[in-house]
Amino acid sequence: MRAVDLVVKKRNKEVLSRDEIAYLINGYVDGSIPEYQISAWLMAVFFCGMSREETGHLTDVMIQSGTVFDLSGIAGPFVDKHSTGGVGDKVSLILAPLVAACGVPVPMMSGRALGHTGGTLDKLESIEGYTTALSMDRFRDVLSEAGYAMTGQSADVVPADRLLYALRDVTGTVESVPLITASILSKKFAEGSDALVFDVKCGSGAFMKTNAQARELAESLVETGDALGKRVVAVLSAMEQPLGHMVGNFLEVEESIACLHGSVGSRSLQPDARSADLMEVTLRLAAWMLVLGGKCSSVEQGCELAGQKLDDRSAWRRFVHNVELQGGDPAVLERRYQNWRAPESHTITAADAGYVEHIDAYKVGMAGVYLGVGRNKADDDVLPHVGIEIHTKRGSRVGCGDALCTIYAAGEQALQNALPLLEQAFRVGPGPVQQLPIILQEISNL
Amino acid sequence: MRAVDLVVKKRNKEVLSRDEIAYLINGYVDGSIPEYQISAWLMAVFFCGMSREETGHLTDVMIQSGTVFDLSGIAGPFVDKHSTGGVGDKVSLILAPLVAACGVPVPMMSGRALGHTGGTLDKLESIEGYTTALSMDRFRDVLSEAGYAMTGQSADVVPADRLLYALRDVTGTVESVPLITASILSKKFAEGSDALVFDVKCGSGAFMKTNAQARELAESLVETGDALGKRVVAVLSAMEQPLGHMVGNFLEVEESIACLHGSVGSRSLQPDARSADLMEVTLRLAAWMLVLGGKCSSVEQGCELAGQKLDDRSAWRRFVHNVELQGGDPAVLERRYQNWRAPESHTITAADAGYVEHIDAYKVGMAGVYLGVGRNKADDDVLPHVGIEIHTKRGSRVGCGDALCTIYAAGEQALQNALPLLEQAFRVGPGPVQQLPIILQEISNL
Repeated sequence: MRAVDLVVKKRNKEVLSRDEIAYLINGYVDGSIPEYQISAWLMAVFFCGMSREETGHLTDVMIQSGTVFDLSGIAGPFVDKHSTGGVGDKVSLILAPLVAACGVPVPMMSGRALGHTGGTLDKLESIEGYTTALSMDRFRDVLSEAGYAMTGQSADVVPADRLLYALRDVTGTVESVPLITASILSKKFAEGSDALVFDVKCGSGAFMKTNAQARELAESLVETGDALGKRVVAVLSAMEQPLGHMVGNFLEVEESIACLHGSVGSRSLQPDARSADLMEVTLRLAAWMLVLGGKCSSVEQGCELAGQKLDDRSAWRRFVHNVELQGGDPAVLERRYQNWRAPESHTITAADAGYVEHIDAYKVGMAGVYLGVGRNKADDDVLPHVGIEIHTKRGSRVGCGDALCTIYAAGEQALQNALPLLEQAFRVGPGPVQQLPIILQEISNL
Repeated sequence: MRAVDLVVKKRNKEVLSRDEIAYLINGYVDGSIPEYQISAWLMAVFFCGMSREETGHLTDVMIQSGTVFDLSGIAGPFVDKHSTGGVGDKVSLILAPLVAACGVPVPMMSGRALGHTGGTLDKLESIEGYTTALSMDRFRDVLSEAGYAMTGQSADVVPADRLLYALRDVTGTVESVPLITASILSKKFAEGSDALVFDVKCGSGAFMKTNAQARELAESLVETGDALGKRVVAVLSAMEQPLGHMVGNFLEVEESIACLHGSVGSRSLQPDARSADLMEVTLRLAAWMLVLGGKCSSVEQGCELAGQKLDDRSAWRRFVHNVELQGGDPAVLERRYQNWRAPESHTITAADAGYVEHIDAYKVGMAGVYLGVGRNKADDDVLPHVGIEIHTKRGSRVGCGDALCTIYAAGEQALQNALPLLEQAFRVGPGPVQQLPIILQEISNL
């Protein structure tokens, strides 16, 4: 077998066999096939695509390139959720303890903020002492005890993905649906999940800007999961405005706590602290996870069970237990709740009375990058206590001078950089605005 | 400027500017841009193509990557010919002295055999003592004295082409018309040609198998030449059967001598030693070169002048003069003429009487590779005195047992390897065969 012949085969729109894909990927990982042949192959895949079976082979070969989590001895099945990334998307922080509280264990492997989108690991690490760098043994222990555990991708899990992603990033081959699919699925299945629920975000604040793009990725994830014999559900959800009220690291931990608990210590929540959009997405994803985990026979039943576990604070107790097990201090958390804010703040107000027509999630996300919520480059630092509190959501009625959002910045310069983006992000118009659905479509291979 | 952005731009089917192309190519040559980004860009070019202007910029940037021949002081204009490669294609050996004899100087840069096609340098070097490795000064001297000089590509001429070609070869990006165009034109213009005639071969023995492919390349060569302000003519010629009667290195020198001279020493030529197809292509290309060189005002006039210079042996004398100047010994040449053959020989005969319907040039060329006429890999050695003598051409009437071709091999194994290919190459049928044109089309920017 010669790498160049496989590049030509793909370039000529033919389908590669499992052995051929394994030859390329394993040769790339072990250094016997040079980067310039792999990058040519990646560009050929960009133009010619891959069949579902091919994408399945690629995913499987990538999984086999490194350590596969061994969760034997812990009662499964294990169900995880993955979001394609959005602004204000703190769903994982609420969902994992909620599903665990319903009796389905969640081994969750999350990512970091990049570009305008936030990262679950960065949010969790804004909790004093909380660590997401768990050994395999510790991960198993936390999963057994709290019913869920949160970690990042370790170097020995799917090394092929790290190498391929780094190469795709510098060769213009990131935006390929089969390559994105294999990257996501390989990581998720290598961590030991038996079934997966995807939150495929769609809109200005997502990577997939249009419904057609989001649906293409969702179908690829579900059908490739099928080719691998795994159950996969993809929920397409709107990402035109930020999800919930908070965009920041600790700010989003706060909003998650508010959703899980309802009130913390002596402070009571504001009336709409549980954002309708955030709760609807979270409960829907939880319900699907409960169906995949064999706990409920329908999504409706799943929603009902999840609602109970939220209301009786079982989910909240799981969260506190997990925070303790992963090194966080609940007392510090409670003390900081609604108190920990970066020093420079500014509130943007409505120039006229009217209705909020649009809150551009991309612009809010980019303002977050300026503030230090997210990163421009993978090795940038993030700040815990900066961000944006959104006081009104799309469709809300506002009076002249009413607060639209408050910015919390570490310094005057960051504030000045973020301000114009946020001023542009909000659009207030004279008339009422039609509500849009948050759940756009659901695709599954069940 | 970042290489990845230029890869994405091309991937998105946009047109790169001259500065952008220069950034990529110069960065590749100086090592500041890695191979994996260039190979991704090459694959993007494979799928998205390049505009004529872009191809012109690429050609020009490649020319500027190295030494440009300085032919000042020698009376021009200089016209060269390039063939896209065929089987039995010894046209350059006849054409260069012929055009020089007509008064148009020819600085000719040629290539080596690769795959099933032969190479002019390998043929010339089968002449005892003949060297194609000329210094710039020596090249100028030979060109001045004999009116033409024959050399190969030196390391300091268009280094970008050697680097790019080596990368294309291992990344499945050879078959791209704009990349082929820039590769050919950059080398030809860097050697100092003012105008070019292309022999674009078309058929089983050529790289371009169909008329449409050949026409696409011809148009690209002519139009890119136009974008560079250079006059270019492309002659599409048939390459279904081998050109002429000989396929081999010294065998083709012999056939060239026969065409230039008519007889050598005491031996007289066989009646059809000047193959009609070989002479028609050679005279047509010569005529165009005479038009481009300002010597004749029409192709018809060019054909007439070239015919005269062939008949009065001026072209032959130029050839002998050049052989002497480039280190060859005409006495050895004459002694070996029709005498120097590899030791193992075998003649294939017709099993039935009939007409030669087809002689598959590709199979003859591949048989040549087995014999040592050509190469599988660029660093293989070739042999001077092996090859195939074709006794009958397409359309000829043959009796049962008549000789179709004779194989000359250095050893029994090579003979046995070549034999089945040659047996398959000839097809004899019962009825007369319609003659096909050798010149298929002519495209020019004059």
